[in-house]
Amino acid sequence: MGLSLGDIAARYGCELRGDPDFVVHHVATLKGADRRSIAFLANAVYRSQLGTTKAGAVIVSPDDAEACSTAALITSNPYLVYAHVAAELHPAEAVEPGISPATTIGSDADVPQSCHVAAGAVIDADVTLGERVYIGANSVIGRGSELGDDTRVMAGVIIYPGVRIGRRCILHGGAVIGADGFGIAKDESGAWIKVPQLGAVIIGDDVEIGANTAIDRGAIENTVIGNGVRLDNLIQVGHNVSIGADTAIAGLTGIAGSARIGARCIIGGHAGVAGHIEIVDDVVVTGGTPVLSSLKKPGYYGGVATSADDIRKWRRNAARFSQLDEMARRLRKLEKQIEKSTGDE
Amino acid sequence: MGLSLGDIAARYGCELRGDPDFVVHHVATLKGADRRSIAFLANAVYRSQLGTTKAGAVIVSPDDAEACSTAALITSNPYLVYAHVAAELHPAEAVEPGISPATTIGSDADVPQSCHVAAGAVIDADVTLGERVYIGANSVIGRGSELGDDTRVMAGVIIYPGVRIGRRCILHGGAVIGADGFGIAKDESGAWIKVPQLGAVIIGDDVEIGANTAIDRGAIENTVIGNGVRLDNLIQVGHNVSIGADTAIAGLTGIAGSARIGARCIIGGHAGVAGHIEIVDDVVVTGGTPVLSSLKKPGYYGGVATSADDIRKWRRNAARFSQLDEMARRLRKLEKQIEKSTGDE
Amino acid sequence: MGLSLGDIAARYGCELRGDPDFVVHHVATLKGADRRSIAFLANAVYRSQLGTTKAGAVIVSPDDAEACSTAALITSNPYLVYAHVAAELHPAEAVEPGISPATTIGSDADVPQSCHVAAGAVIDADVTLGERVYIGANSVIGRGSELGDDTRVMAGVIIYPGVRIGRRCILHGGAVIGADGFGIAKDESGAWIKVPQLGAVIIGDDVEIGANTAIDRGAIENTVIGNGVRLDNLIQVGHNVSIGADTAIAGLTGIAGSARIGARCIIGGHAGVAGHIEIVDDVVVTGGTPVLSSLKKPGYYGGVATSADDIRKWRRNAARFSQLDEMARRLRKLEKQIEKSTGDE
Repeated sequence: MGLSLGDIAARYGCELRGDPDFVVHHVATLKGADRRSIAFLANAVYRSQLGTTKAGAVIVSPDDAEACSTAALITSNPYLVYAHVAAELHPAEAVEPGISPATTIGSDADVPQSCHVAAGAVIDADVTLGERVYIGANSVIGRGSELGDDTRVMAGVIIYPGVRIGRRCILHGGAVIGADGFGIAKDESGAWIKVPQLGAVIIGDDVEIGANTAIDRGAIENTVIGNGVRLDNLIQVGHNVSIGADTAIAGLTGIAGSARIGARCIIGGHAGVAGHIEIVDDVVVTGGTPVLSSLKKPGYYGGVATSADDIRKWRRNAARFSQLDEMARRLRKLEKQIEKSTGDE
Repeated sequence: MGLSLGDIAARYGCELRGDPDFVVHHVATLKGADRRSIAFLANAVYRSQLGTTKAGAVIVSPDDAEACSTAALITSNPYLVYAHVAAELHPAEAVEPGISPATTIGSDADVPQSCHVAAGAVIDADVTLGERVYIGANSVIGRGSELGDDTRVMAGVIIYPGVRIGRRCILHGGAVIGADGFGIAKDESGAWIKVPQLGAVIIGDDVEIGANTAIDRGAIENTVIGNGVRLDNLIQVGHNVSIGADTAIAGLTGIAGSARIGARCIIGGHAGVAGHIEIVDDVVVTGGTPVLSSLKKPGYYGGVATSADDIRKWRRNAARFSQLDEMARRLRKLEKQIEKSTGDE
Repeated sequence: MGLSLGDIAARYGCELRGDPDFVVHHVATLKGADRRSIAFLANAVYRSQLGTTKAGAVIVSPDDAEACSTAALITSNPYLVYAHVAAELHPAEAVEPGISPATTIGSDADVPQSCHVAAGAVIDADVTLGERVYIGANSVIGRGSELGDDTRVMAGVIIYPGVRIGRRCILHGGAVIGADGFGIAKDESGAWIKVPQLGAVIIGDDVEIGANTAIDRGAIENTVIGNGVRLDNLIQVGHNVSIGADTAIAGLTGIAGSARIGARCIIGGHAGVAGHIEIVDDVVVTGGTPVLSSLKKPGYYGGVATSADDIRKWRRNAARFSQLDEMARRLRKLEKQIEKSTGDE
């Protein structure tokens, strides 16, 4: 099997510089490619490899086409065309119907014959699975949860009771969906009283959730993840959070309780979103940024104070941070003195 | 079932403005409430909803009572009263005794008949469970561990051998208790030698541990989590750490090895506590703060350098950070020049 | 059993101040020690305990030997000698061969009789285990993965298909190896298209991976973890990352996709490494540091802007951060005015 360059160009609207009948069979990096493979360039870091790649063809932007030493598929979005081509050349395996004997399936659970349930999976009572759902080894689907058609739950995922997940979702190993939110109230003695977490988690269609990511159930109403949301690994999503359609969030980011994030946002890794704030649609936040108050206008936001620096230089600068307000006051005082002396003249 | 406003007021010391015989049946948000429900206001963000809520009653602070358009239960701590009322209206299900046939229980494990052990759970040899302990699906309880009465281990929790957990605790999915601490020593060749991790983890009563949180066992002595501690999701607790009673820590925070945290502390999400330092009782640390040295006085501490800002503005400011020490020196020099010229006059 | 001080001194090149025939039986902290135990001092924080310890012997550096009130084993690297002594006095249990009946082992999986496979483990088709491999309870080993001799997979670990792990590795509970990387491309409508993740994860010998750490598979080629690497808990390793031999990384650190980290690096907890950058060999990065661009020289780097400070003082300083560029400009303006006025004189 393979794809001809002519077919790729036609299907994904590329300009082709090269032989339309040339066939590529698999994808490769620019550096690792051979004649049977197709590569792409989407990050300028790797541009120097364009001239030496052994790939049969490369997907490039118009600006990079010139430098390409082999057949070029020219498009304004090389990474997107690559995604399509890679999915055609290396399609995901279809779900093989069958239920392992080493599973536990509760009473009144609805598991269609088109589903795959792997060994060690536990499907609790009253669960409803759509067609062709995949449940990986040792995953747990809590009582009454519902999963839509073609959703894939990889090995070792924990879904609490009452969670609703749409169609064509992918949940990766170790994800925990629907644990209690962090709701605690202090009593007169200083001890914490648990606040019952009575809501659920509602996840739309085409959502992918990374390994070991945790999404808490709502306290009263629901935690809501919109269609097409993409969450990376080790993300914390607090109770009552809502995330709008097609928002993507990178690993180790924390979203505190009741935050509302709009559609089509991109949030970098290790960022933090404070509780009860709102981020509107179409906001991009760089990695590591603490979002401590609402972002009410679309646009690009950053907030990491400093990148890695020589440790002695960094220590001197970091020490000054705690003097920053004092420095600002001294600066203002000097300005006044200068103004006055200038005015005096 | 339900609760009358008069009963709530009497039980939790509220002043009631409204009909004491009016009965509420479930909790709701101010916005989502109907006449049969009771809501609360504990965050000023939602105050504007007080005038339009359809709730049968609202739990409010004295300052907010005026603005409330319906029956008001007035108290100085609305969230605490809400926690109690919610627990009464929506009690946690009792643990249903029974051991699934699809479990593995080791020799000499003590599992009272009042316990629930769900499918796929593995209870190793010499484990001791208290009365009414709940072990969720596919959880693993390592050899010789002890869990006190009424503790609930949700699905997919991993407890290593030799861990001791008190009464009435809740451990959420994916939590890992008692893995080896990060103890490594560099040898002459530059390779790491593993330092045996010989201690255990000792957890008190009434502790709640969030999804995918990891608590390492001690290197020589034990890692100790006090009574009433509340840990959110995805927290890292290093070896030999001790956390005092009733301390609460939010998600994605890391506590490095041998840190000692006092009682009744509150630590925000994404914070970091350095190794071998001490935080005294009654310290509050805001989210994202790096605690790099001991905090010896109770009080409030912060440390995030910057919140999200327009990306161009942020880039200009962040670039200046690496010049901060130089700026401070230039400021001092100017001050001296001015002093001198003023003195000269 | 036990070790004589003379034997320890001879085996690990220590100078002994004390009776060579004195035998110690177990390790202890300086504070918790009794006469039968050996302790060590590697952190100055605990130096004051040297004078009062009840240990039979203490492993110390030459500088601390004087202050030691008991027998001293003097070495330039007390922590390393301690690691060796602790491993001798408290050896790890040998793997007990045997396969629990409550496991699922796929067709053509190669599981030598010297292995231990605990209850609930699922070993998929075509897996190859080396000699004396330990597979903990409820762990999952995906199709076609290979694990080398003497590797230990603790309870609840998820290994995706096609992963290769070397000899003598330890993987802790909840670790997820080989999940899909975060590869998504935006289409014209604003929706995300999944980029197939076709590579694998290749892990060398003597690697230890902490609880709930996630290592993604490569997008096209492989994610590669070198020999002797030590990863703490809750670390995110993105697709295509390579980490060189004997590098150690502390908890909650994130390594974004395609980053290349050299050999013998040490990266503190809660640090972040941006995508597609390179860190050369022998770099040390302090905890919490964002590494946003390549580090091309060995050495020490830091980058946390600020440690915890009194909250009012911190708020004043943090507010100034967003004025930093403006302050720098005002400072420059003042300098020019002073220069000019001085020049004028």
